[in-house]
Amino acid sequence: MSYHFATTLNISFDDAVDKVTAALKEEGFGVLTTIDIQATLKKKLGVEFPRYVILGACSPTLAFEALTVENKIGTMLPCNVIVRDDGDGNTEVAAVDPVSSMQAVENPKLAKVAAMVREKLKSVIDSLTY
Amino acid sequence: MSYHFATTLNISFDDAVDKVTAALKEEGFGVLTTIDIQATLKKKLGVEFPRYVILGACSPTLAFEALTVENKIGTMLPCNVIVRDDGDGNTEVAAVDPVSSMQAVENPKLAKVAAMVREKLKSVIDSLTY
Repeated sequence: MSYHFATTLNISFDDAVDKVTAALKEEGFGVLTTIDIQATLKKKLGVEFPRYVILGACSPTLAFEALTVENKIGTMLPCNVIVRDDGDGNTEVAAVDPVSSMQAVENPKLAKVAAMVREKLKSVIDSLTY
Repeated sequence: MSYHFATTLNISFDDAVDKVTAALKEEGFGVLTTIDIQATLKKKLGVEFPRYVILGACSPTLAFEALTVENKIGTMLPCNVIVRDDGDGNTEVAAVDPVSSMQAVENPKLAKVAAMVREKLKSVIDSLTY
């Protein structure tokens, strides 16, 4: 089982961030957090790293449902979508597969929510290539 | 395999947030993001929820190592630590077990980093009870 859904787009990094943010919104996800990996690694370690952001995506309704049936599932929320400069004008976008990351959580009710989120995130990534 | 390390403390919610933030710092983790679940659910859905925060903890050195050996592991970073009001004056603190969440990532180099982070997060949780 892969742990993510990914696609490589021949668009700029900034355009990819805008495009995936809009696609997430279409599927009911807001972006709660944005971590600029390039800036963080530069600041903390002084190292050079390609452009890379982690967007913390959250569907309030599904997050509420997940937290209600499994009170410590916040350790695996929000669901992350990354955008990374892949060189040569290409940008890769990848979303976590929550069914994969949550596989050790032994709770059928949670598994049902994770499967719903999985389908929505997969649709987000699929929508980017059209 | 459990997906988290958890402990319940008989201290206030705010004190628990301060205590775990200090303990994370001791082990080399900064807190990159803080999500106030109670406020988010109130704002987005109008529902009441106990106090609950998700702290996105990151060790820059280990994150850099993880991203270098597995370029899409940002879909599972940072490592989350939650603090939740458990009622009756108790507060529960739980950290994700990255070995559990990253088990589908077939990369021995990444597994080595995840195991190191696991030990550090386990130490953070263990340290809270003393």
